[in-house]
Amino acid sequence: MMDGKNLQIRLKNRPDGPPSIGDFEVFEADIPDAGEGEVLCRTLYLSLDPYMRGQISGRHISGTILPGDMMRGETISEVVTSHHADFKAGDRVAHHGGWQGWSVAKADELVPVDRRIMPPSLALGMLGMPGLTAYAGMIYLAELKKGDNLVVSAASGAVGSMVGQIAGIMGCRVVGIAGADEKCRWLREEAGFADCINYKTQDLAAALKESCPDGVDVYFDNVGGDMLDIVMGQLALGARVVLCGLMAQYNTDVIPPGPNPATIIKARATVRGLVVYDFFDKKQEFLDRVIPWVDQGLISYREDVTGGLENAPAAFVRLMSGKNFGKTIIRV
Amino acid sequence: MMDGKNLQIRLKNRPDGPPSIGDFEVFEADIPDAGEGEVLCRTLYLSLDPYMRGQISGRHISGTILPGDMMRGETISEVVTSHHADFKAGDRVAHHGGWQGWSVAKADELVPVDRRIMPPSLALGMLGMPGLTAYAGMIYLAELKKGDNLVVSAASGAVGSMVGQIAGIMGCRVVGIAGADEKCRWLREEAGFADCINYKTQDLAAALKESCPDGVDVYFDNVGGDMLDIVMGQLALGARVVLCGLMAQYNTDVIPPGPNPATIIKARATVRGLVVYDFFDKKQEFLDRVIPWVDQGLISYREDVTGGLENAPAAFVRLMSGKNFGKTIIRV
Repeated sequence: MMDGKNLQIRLKNRPDGPPSIGDFEVFEADIPDAGEGEVLCRTLYLSLDPYMRGQISGRHISGTILPGDMMRGETISEVVTSHHADFKAGDRVAHHGGWQGWSVAKADELVPVDRRIMPPSLALGMLGMPGLTAYAGMIYLAELKKGDNLVVSAASGAVGSMVGQIAGIMGCRVVGIAGADEKCRWLREEAGFADCINYKTQDLAAALKESCPDGVDVYFDNVGGDMLDIVMGQLALGARVVLCGLMAQYNTDVIPPGPNPATIIKARATVRGLVVYDFFDKKQEFLDRVIPWVDQGLISYREDVTGGLENAPAAFVRLMSGKNFGKTIIRV
Repeated sequence: MMDGKNLQIRLKNRPDGPPSIGDFEVFEADIPDAGEGEVLCRTLYLSLDPYMRGQISGRHISGTILPGDMMRGETISEVVTSHHADFKAGDRVAHHGGWQGWSVAKADELVPVDRRIMPPSLALGMLGMPGLTAYAGMIYLAELKKGDNLVVSAASGAVGSMVGQIAGIMGCRVVGIAGADEKCRWLREEAGFADCINYKTQDLAAALKESCPDGVDVYFDNVGGDMLDIVMGQLALGARVVLCGLMAQYNTDVIPPGPNPATIIKARATVRGLVVYDFFDKKQEFLDRVIPWVDQGLISYREDVTGGLENAPAAFVRLMSGKNFGKTIIRV
């Protein structure tokens, strides 16, 4: 057994509304041993994502986290001890290591991190699951056409900012919706968005009408709730809507309704649900296409990095209140 | 000017909820004269359709009917006097003649009724706009696959029964939702539906689960409201939903919300809005394909025919309360 302790964060209480730091507790376990065919990994980066709030509520398709359970999450780790021929000490791997400093995994649960990805934390964000989510939505579901007015909510997040930048590369005019002037400024000035609406200080419906007077051709929704309703009230004929995230309802136990079906009929819209798991077979294609864009500076990104696993609950609380700016990462 | 009077039905009051007979009034106008290039038509059949309730509310895309206006609607007529080379006395034509016994139309507003359509009233139902609606939904939007479990609401209506029968011909297993045992029986015994749920006497969610234990692959919705919500809670992975009608909200001024977007995401569903106007260019293809099915007895249909234009308000009230059975037609 290795010396030292394995810091873990566990769920203490299932919160009713927005989570607070007291809903989590820090636990010290022993560093686990890798058995036959297994690999011991030291966590380098942990990804925090809004879908975890759904897991806590027991409402996410990836499963439920109960009080007492360790929080789950995707990690980038370094192999420390390998009992499998495919991995050796020093390799960088991605897997669902959870909110802990050390983890043991079977070889088939580990994915080598593409060596072109630098910094490696991008494998959790723009070049990881959020990036693939955006890519799948834009390339496979949105039926993008040059000149489309594309609107994306939670626009400064990893998914949202990748959605907007891929759409921009594809020739769309991109309008973001975000909750802070600083985020809007970055999207306009750094990420190439044509416009960005601060839904907290502006009248979203009026601002959208001004920004897209001919209607919204494509909407990529990370939020649901009222925001979805407002944007769907302004769809152009033949609009496509990609439903991806439900930020507006992760923090609530009351499932809110959605937009009236008349909005879809009137616009002859096509509305599709996106779950990234369905596109894992496109991961290599995604990396081969998008890494060069990042390397050429066509894609800007923001990471919101917090040091120390013990600070993960505070970072998650901040994420769920929209106060993060960019992909939320814990550097362990 | 012709002898006799032209009976017209006009809107008297805009109803708040379900319409009543007193919301309409009968009016006697003179029979109009056909001018240069115009055609005088005697109405044979008038189609009554739920979308008319939306016109009365001012919420239908085809326009608004105000108190004092004559009620609009599609008619099959016989040409009495023609001042245009394309038409002669005795021709059968379809046009938007409205709720009246006589009408004058420009030649380019008239469509000759296909001589294969017998009885001619079918040109208002299974072989008219409702039939084309169903055809467009099944052939162009629903992406039908053999063995799909297809559910259709308002299933005994012209659109619904055509949807189910086309889907059956395409190899789907068809489940209807209707509001009377008599309608369900007809759908099962005459129209070839595998199953039919009476939503007024059965628990729709439970009955649907029993009838489609692996989920609903295709839902064609003529209703909206709670029914849409319940069916969308039971979509199979990769389901397709065609939104066509809004029976649940035509009678109300309060626009109800729709299903939570999570239902679409979880099922990776594709939801599309259908407006038949977009498919008018498919009308000949539709007739050439579907008339032989009708002639071969592959398609059953019901017409709910009321004699006398003065009885149109009562028939419309009955239609909007779901008490009709089959395509509602006024024989003038």
